[in-house]
Amino acid sequence: MPLVVQKYGGTSVGTAERIRAVAERVRRTRESGYEVVVVVSAMGDTTDRLVELARSVAPEPDRRDYDLLLSTGETQSTALLSMALKAIGCPSISLAGAQLGIKTDRVYSRARIMDIQPDRLKAELANGRCVIVPGFQGVTDEGDITTIGRGGSDTTAVALACALEAPKCEIYTDVDGVFTADPRIVPTARRLSSISYEEMLELAQMGARVMHPRAVELAELYSLLVEVRSSFNDHPGTLIDRGDAMESRKHVRGIAHDTNVAKVTLAGVPDCPGLAHALFAPLAEAGISVDVIVQAASIGGLAEISFTVSRADLNQAMQVVEKIAAETGASVAHGTASLAKISIVGTGLQSAPGYAARMFGTLAEHGINIDMITTSDIRITCVIEESAVEEAVQALHTTFELDKED
Amino acid sequence: MPLVVQKYGGTSVGTAERIRAVAERVRRTRESGYEVVVVVSAMGDTTDRLVELARSVAPEPDRRDYDLLLSTGETQSTALLSMALKAIGCPSISLAGAQLGIKTDRVYSRARIMDIQPDRLKAELANGRCVIVPGFQGVTDEGDITTIGRGGSDTTAVALACALEAPKCEIYTDVDGVFTADPRIVPTARRLSSISYEEMLELAQMGARVMHPRAVELAELYSLLVEVRSSFNDHPGTLIDRGDAMESRKHVRGIAHDTNVAKVTLAGVPDCPGLAHALFAPLAEAGISVDVIVQAASIGGLAEISFTVSRADLNQAMQVVEKIAAETGASVAHGTASLAKISIVGTGLQSAPGYAARMFGTLAEHGINIDMITTSDIRITCVIEESAVEEAVQALHTTFELDKED
Repeated sequence: MPLVVQKYGGTSVGTAERIRAVAERVRRTRESGYEVVVVVSAMGDTTDRLVELARSVAPEPDRRDYDLLLSTGETQSTALLSMALKAIGCPSISLAGAQLGIKTDRVYSRARIMDIQPDRLKAELANGRCVIVPGFQGVTDEGDITTIGRGGSDTTAVALACALEAPKCEIYTDVDGVFTADPRIVPTARRLSSISYEEMLELAQMGARVMHPRAVELAELYSLLVEVRSSFNDHPGTLIDRGDAMESRKHVRGIAHDTNVAKVTLAGVPDCPGLAHALFAPLAEAGISVDVIVQAASIGGLAEISFTVSRADLNQAMQVVEKIAAETGASVAHGTASLAKISIVGTGLQSAPGYAARMFGTLAEHGINIDMITTSDIRITCVIEESAVEEAVQALHTTFELDKED
Repeated sequence: MPLVVQKYGGTSVGTAERIRAVAERVRRTRESGYEVVVVVSAMGDTTDRLVELARSVAPEPDRRDYDLLLSTGETQSTALLSMALKAIGCPSISLAGAQLGIKTDRVYSRARIMDIQPDRLKAELANGRCVIVPGFQGVTDEGDITTIGRGGSDTTAVALACALEAPKCEIYTDVDGVFTADPRIVPTARRLSSISYEEMLELAQMGARVMHPRAVELAELYSLLVEVRSSFNDHPGTLIDRGDAMESRKHVRGIAHDTNVAKVTLAGVPDCPGLAHALFAPLAEAGISVDVIVQAASIGGLAEISFTVSRADLNQAMQVVEKIAAETGASVAHGTASLAKISIVGTGLQSAPGYAARMFGTLAEHGINIDMITTSDIRITCVIEESAVEEAVQALHTTFELDKED
């Protein structure tokens, strides 16, 4: 029998009723001839409540204790889904985090998966059972529980699918799949029937939240077929795979936006070798993830560097930068939190001329000022004022004819 | 350094504030020169909420899944207490259920501890850390999480203290110790400074809820010194040990009562060999725990058997008994749920004459009818109407002069 790994997110298992609905779906999958491994997230706001509890007993909770605490949310969903399956006559078994065979390093709260030995999991599948497992966690060689941080359960699902050599991994969420743009902003946004790993990665990194980029990368590495679809209906989802042949028919596949953007600018910096290193090394040490970086042409030997961070990191980034400004004699640094990123994504975008020009032209027509620009092979991103995001997404969706069928 | 095992119940860790208070107590214990192992229960009503969730996804949840679910409550308290300790500078480590070395059989929800190999626990103590562990759970040889049912965390604490050869186990609860009677009913009830295992066992089985009888039995088996005390103040508690020399000074040590009593009577049963077996075997199979049993003298070859069960089991017990009544041609069975048990407990009670007479006399003086009587070496129990319980406890407390110092 073919094996499928299904992952259900926190909203999909958010209530007892939804857990029962997921159980029905798992049973149908099994009855249509599949072996099924199910990876679940914690119910709804469980993780948030645990985080709050932790903060109220310790201002900066020890990461190892914290991981043990958070891991219980996924374990609860696992046990509940397994009992819901048995209640409707579907053979199932729940495994605890330590039983998955997912070995990680000891970097608590953002552990990396080192090895997967899913012997128990295979044995239970061979027994004809659906196997229900908690996402987001692993164990160290000493049996200490870790959580894998970013991408959590998506990454668990993809990693298990790869280790079990499953032909397919299904990511169930609360939307129908990957859209050409956020349907809440663009009513004519279409679901994409398929998308390449690369495109998905860019969309995910640029703000489309259906699947975590870390999980997409892992799927690409193992050429695992992934489908993102809704747990609330039976509509087809979006397939993520290697993508079309070398020349894709349409270059722009989707528009992503992200309003969690803050910008820091350091002006009047002496333009000398090592400046970027002096600036970004302390930011990295402080654990601040820097996204778009722009260095303006040096005028009179003084440079201007701007970069974006997530809004939560702005205050900390400003502290680091003000210290460096004082040390280097830069004229003052300033930060702003009212920005957003907007990106067009598509394979081969860079090699086909004119896309950047069309993007900038569209924004100009709408009087939207571009603050920063950054590009990759398959993406062009502009940083703009947050207030202009909706208009920009709608305009670009029309410009690139994303409301029309492929 | 001497080792102490401390157990904190659900009320003692019921809120973030209380967890911080427990952390302070653990730190003080460590700073006064002890190695400390702490066993914690789930916070407040956590277990009740999980039970309710389980019921809402499956009418009769699979026991293995159920154990995995419930075990998460204690795991959460464990992680939270450990981070609270580190936050106040006390070195600590939290262990997950699978890391305690507590091996159980596979009887889910009421697993028996088969073996304890606390290697990890010892290693962490040797590292100078307080070790925080979840109560109420163990693992099978396959690494499957079990819960040990009745007595939960009390039993875990006593079992770990025995395995670690700790000289003492402290059971922290929301009362100051073991009292001569329930202080809510008898304002002059006194805390006992010490009590024997046997007496504690009888009191615990007869309704005093400070410590579970299963844990008392285990402590007796290993001659482990136990102290029951409050986590809300620094008052001394009650020591539980082998007890005084052969002749204790005062025979009645305490009065227990239990209002969770229902009675089933089967009348007009043919009095023939095997009757009791025919009645009680199916009750045992149905998992119903029978407490007091009284068989009335046979009149004209027809016997009358009465027994008590907990009120939650009354309906199920009646179903079993009505079936047997039909099969044996007994005249009808009837059940009542408005009863209570009241017991006087003390070492050597049976060997010293007159206690039973004084108990019955006191109840008679107060016009309280005795429905059933049962005795052990160190206990005399009467089943009476629930409505008379408070008066009976107060009267017996006076009769046996329990308000006076030993």
